[in-house]
Amino acid sequence: MVAVDLGGTRMKCGLVAADGAVLHRETRPTPREAGGRAVLEALLETVVELGQKAAADGHRVRAVGVVVPGIIDAATGTVGAENLAWAGTPVLAELKAAIGHDQHVILAHDVRAGGYAELRQGALTGTTNSLFLPLGTGIAAAMVVDGSLVSGDGYAGELGHTRFVNGEAAELCACGQWGCLETVASAAALARRYGVRTGRVVDGSREVLELLAEGDPDAEAVWKEAMAALIDALVLYTTLVAPTRIAIGGGLVGAGETLLAPLREGVTARLTFQRNPEIVAAVLGEEAGCLGAALMAWDSVTAEESGEQPV
Amino acid sequence: MVAVDLGGTRMKCGLVAADGAVLHRETRPTPREAGGRAVLEALLETVVELGQKAAADGHRVRAVGVVVPGIIDAATGTVGAENLAWAGTPVLAELKAAIGHDQHVILAHDVRAGGYAELRQGALTGTTNSLFLPLGTGIAAAMVVDGSLVSGDGYAGELGHTRFVNGEAAELCACGQWGCLETVASAAALARRYGVRTGRVVDGSREVLELLAEGDPDAEAVWKEAMAALIDALVLYTTLVAPTRIAIGGGLVGAGETLLAPLREGVTARLTFQRNPEIVAAVLGEEAGCLGAALMAWDSVTAEESGEQPV
Repeated sequence: MVAVDLGGTRMKCGLVAADGAVLHRETRPTPREAGGRAVLEALLETVVELGQKAAADGHRVRAVGVVVPGIIDAATGTVGAENLAWAGTPVLAELKAAIGHDQHVILAHDVRAGGYAELRQGALTGTTNSLFLPLGTGIAAAMVVDGSLVSGDGYAGELGHTRFVNGEAAELCACGQWGCLETVASAAALARRYGVRTGRVVDGSREVLELLAEGDPDAEAVWKEAMAALIDALVLYTTLVAPTRIAIGGGLVGAGETLLAPLREGVTARLTFQRNPEIVAAVLGEEAGCLGAALMAWDSVTAEESGEQPV
Repeated sequence: MVAVDLGGTRMKCGLVAADGAVLHRETRPTPREAGGRAVLEALLETVVELGQKAAADGHRVRAVGVVVPGIIDAATGTVGAENLAWAGTPVLAELKAAIGHDQHVILAHDVRAGGYAELRQGALTGTTNSLFLPLGTGIAAAMVVDGSLVSGDGYAGELGHTRFVNGEAAELCACGQWGCLETVASAAALARRYGVRTGRVVDGSREVLELLAEGDPDAEAVWKEAMAALIDALVLYTTLVAPTRIAIGGGLVGAGETLLAPLREGVTARLTFQRNPEIVAAVLGEEAGCLGAALMAWDSVTAEESGEQPV
């Protein structure tokens, strides 16, 4: 099947077999600057061309899975995604029109798709209540509750846009709210906040982590603020939904135990009556979204063939 | 069937027919002061006596539903409930031993059972993503996510024990954490906080609401603090799980629009990209828990007879 992880700067594309084996992979630019229509056309062209490539290689395409960083309204198949310049864009209908009605189309949230992959083949295998939390440019969560990945009609999981910074320290978030987790604890926020604090422009969160390792006090300060907000968020999630395992992903998890150890310690110190979740690193890395798209699409085909409703 | 809503001060008991009709109801005291063993024995005695009464009246008892204000470990059937002096108490096993193995036994969290009743026959009918939030002596939530009531192995829904008061204003909660929603926004907290603020002992939240209606400035102050924390909690829940409807229950909902209107206004003002949930009053009142226990038990019997797994 054809899988596309459509990000704000590039599309990660693949042809994936039923067992999850990747037969082909490529990356294309996302023409974000040219506007939402151009992004949609680039996506449709990519999906059609990958289908042609699969056919030329002797494969039959059964399904197409596309994941996007935005809110997909489950009732209408329209997408709102600031990073793709989409607002109410009828992506599902356009995909179906472009590829024909003999193929399944799965359109899913990138983080939920990544969570699905981690649940099926990664760090969350075997769990029934768990959380996939990638800390990248933004922060969103894939929630596994009572054995299922939560959709909330496409709206669930926006832990990055819940308030964990209060009072004068709260900054305005791109979403229009104040003090969101994403404004202090995303990879982008670390770099930005270090820059604001010191007047120095750094090369992303990677450089902040290097400075942290060298004992730079400003890097330590922004890191501690990020950790405090993350601990608040994980305690809250644990109290509300009782996960047994939390898998942290995204760019920041490259910090390894520098990230995970204080999160474990901070969460454990705060819990009283709640179950204490394991806190681990996600394992599928950047491919989680694309693999999740493929797995969702394959499962949809399988469910139909067995007479069940597609998921 | 036999239904018991076991509270910290009294047990609300009933005999309920398959269609939800209440054939008999009675209330007994909970011997909380005599300790956890006495509470358990009183429960077992009640369940047995109600079964005998049903038999004497010519009814066959098919199932027993008991709801409790505590955490029921789904794997072991043990209960931890401070209000019942229970810690790791093997309630499910004792119930099964007392009533015999030809009857279904459902042991459920009181608020989740109330939410189940509101979902099946009350304010949440027809929803697939919604929230039942009773504001009583304590605060807990029943979460409906993607069409199912969330259990989290018995641990989910503790919205009352998430932190919505920060800094020096945060008080220690009975759960051992600081600044929990329950410490400012429960019916008990309103009365207690008014008392601390004024030095006057009031007759529960009812009197605080009366003082509020009279324009008492101290009542207004504690009310505003409660509203602010509740708005924070509802915004957070909406961002994370995207309910379409929120039903507020418990004693405080007696305040009607005095409670609901500022919650609606406050939540609407804060949301940006999220779906705006309806905020309504729950409709089943104090009987929700007992009715939920009965509905759960009946559904368990029905599911078994149709060959499905009991829920």
